[in-house]
Amino acid sequence: MFITFEGPEGSGKSTQIKMLLERLKQEKIPYTKTFEPGGTPLGQEIRKLLLHRPEPMAERAELFLYAADRAEHVKTVIKPALERGEVVICDRYYHSTMAYQGYGRGISLELIRNIMDIAISDAEPERVFLIDVPVEEGFKRIKTSGRDKDRIESEALSFHQRLREGYLEMAQKEEERFLVLDGTRSPEEIHEKIWDEVKRCL
Amino acid sequence: MFITFEGPEGSGKSTQIKMLLERLKQEKIPYTKTFEPGGTPLGQEIRKLLLHRPEPMAERAELFLYAADRAEHVKTVIKPALERGEVVICDRYYHSTMAYQGYGRGISLELIRNIMDIAISDAEPERVFLIDVPVEEGFKRIKTSGRDKDRIESEALSFHQRLREGYLEMAQKEEERFLVLDGTRSPEEIHEKIWDEVKRCL
Repeated sequence: MFITFEGPEGSGKSTQIKMLLERLKQEKIPYTKTFEPGGTPLGQEIRKLLLHRPEPMAERAELFLYAADRAEHVKTVIKPALERGEVVICDRYYHSTMAYQGYGRGISLELIRNIMDIAISDAEPERVFLIDVPVEEGFKRIKTSGRDKDRIESEALSFHQRLREGYLEMAQKEEERFLVLDGTRSPEEIHEKIWDEVKRCL
Repeated sequence: MFITFEGPEGSGKSTQIKMLLERLKQEKIPYTKTFEPGGTPLGQEIRKLLLHRPEPMAERAELFLYAADRAEHVKTVIKPALERGEVVICDRYYHSTMAYQGYGRGISLELIRNIMDIAISDAEPERVFLIDVPVEEGFKRIKTSGRDKDRIESEALSFHQRLREGYLEMAQKEEERFLVLDGTRSPEEIHEKIWDEVKRCL
């Protein structure tokens, strides 16, 4: 079973992933937890280019770097774990690229989808947990966390507004796959919804 | 005018590019000389990942890294130089990707071509100078040059054989664009053929 977590900055994805992993551990269900960009040694190098270079880059260069990271990740981490029969939990996957590069930056969604199809081969997530929070709320949480914003997080508010709307639009279009969770609810409450869904699917 | 140089390892591309640049300088024709992978600051980082990491990488990850390098290069170097009215001379371009990743590694040529179309936008080279040498001859030249082989150069002989054949096939298919030069002839002789063609096009 392949599960991805999606959502804007500060939505509480990391907390939810942690809670789900603890649950899986308790239940003795074997899993692999991974993330994008950067879930492989090559991906770590790509991640540095994507998030920590101060210079702007061509939009399509950015898109292809995400695709390179993903192709390596699918081949060396995700597919092998699925073949071992593990639950794979991935923090961000191609819906992030659709949201950030497509809805956020305005690159054609069809073009992105074509590239992503090549990058993922047929490794489609069975469940996408989208944690939705109002943009200002997400921003506030990043601020109070005290850490430095990376290049993507520093984008304008309107960019983050577009990507939130993008996420919600994708969830509507692929409703059989997405579960939208209200990120303003308590972590425990959100976790229970996620866990119910995971149990149902397992 | 946009010119690319293509050819297997040790074909003598660098020598020919140097001779052409000297000629353009003499004739006071403004030009930009550039190369792939690595013709931009971002590209330099990508080049390190492509050529100098000892670990193998997923074929499609490699393909997307070349595409990322190219997208950045086209946007920040090639197109601006063409807009300034300069002759752009590029050491390797997308025909290298078709040859190495397509004919060499066996990735579908159509798939590569789709990705390349996105990477280059419409920056098509007007002339492709392909310097052709028998694989063994090219290898001998690299060996006697004394430098270390990079990851691509270390591929098996059969790989390099396939890519030579791929180059020649592309030259046949796009004969209005390609000029195939016999790399076993003297550098001066090859240069004169190239210069005749460049003059004709200018």
